[in-house]
Amino acid sequence: MPRSVVPVNLADNLARFSELWSQKRVAVLNDYEVKVAKLKGEFVWHTHEDTDELFLVISGRLRIQVRDAEVVLEPGELFVVPRGVEHCPVADEETAILLFEPTGTLNTGDAGGPMTKPAEVLD
Amino acid sequence: MPRSVVPVNLADNLARFSELWSQKRVAVLNDYEVKVAKLKGEFVWHTHEDTDELFLVISGRLRIQVRDAEVVLEPGELFVVPRGVEHCPVADEETAILLFEPTGTLNTGDAGGPMTKPAEVLD
Repeated sequence: MPRSVVPVNLADNLARFSELWSQKRVAVLNDYEVKVAKLKGEFVWHTHEDTDELFLVISGRLRIQVRDAEVVLEPGELFVVPRGVEHCPVADEETAILLFEPTGTLNTGDAGGPMTKPAEVLD
Repeated sequence: MPRSVVPVNLADNLARFSELWSQKRVAVLNDYEVKVAKLKGEFVWHTHEDTDELFLVISGRLRIQVRDAEVVLEPGELFVVPRGVEHCPVADEETAILLFEPTGTLNTGDAGGPMTKPAEVLD
């Protein structure tokens, strides 16, 4: 029998924390990170000038406001916010997401403020 | 009312093709691609010397053989095959996956052969 390697289970990782708006790194791909987060309420308007940002909804429902437009993501739906586009995520119910972006991308982009928090590693 | 933007629905995209072992691009993030594919059977052993490769199972079950080990992915589980690690995906039942890797990464890596196929864009 070959040695068994354990994959990353998204639900198991999400069950390990309850904190909202705190990105947890679950995998690394080259110089990119795969992160999960739990969201509820409205975040802050911000922009990532240097990178696109991918949101994939795992459970719940995420609205991403982009000034004159809005994209609504149900589970199994993803959206890439292009670099330089100001956006603000809103979760009307508790929502779990997967994020994919370059390592070190800050959650609040150029906006800063009290919601700013570097991604943590789930050990 | 803000203008509504349509997200990428993974299930809808998977419903649009039946071809096996053919990667379909559904989104772009910087110089990376998000692709979906349907797999059944055993692929070919191959290596990507220049990049890690992310597999996320959407439905079905994927075994990734890595010579002396194996990782089994159920829906909602992901695994990153590190660059330079020879691997061979096997799906004992029809399995739908999401792939994330640099744009232009070939499905068969260094192995070539009849299964080699560039990613297609789902329009």
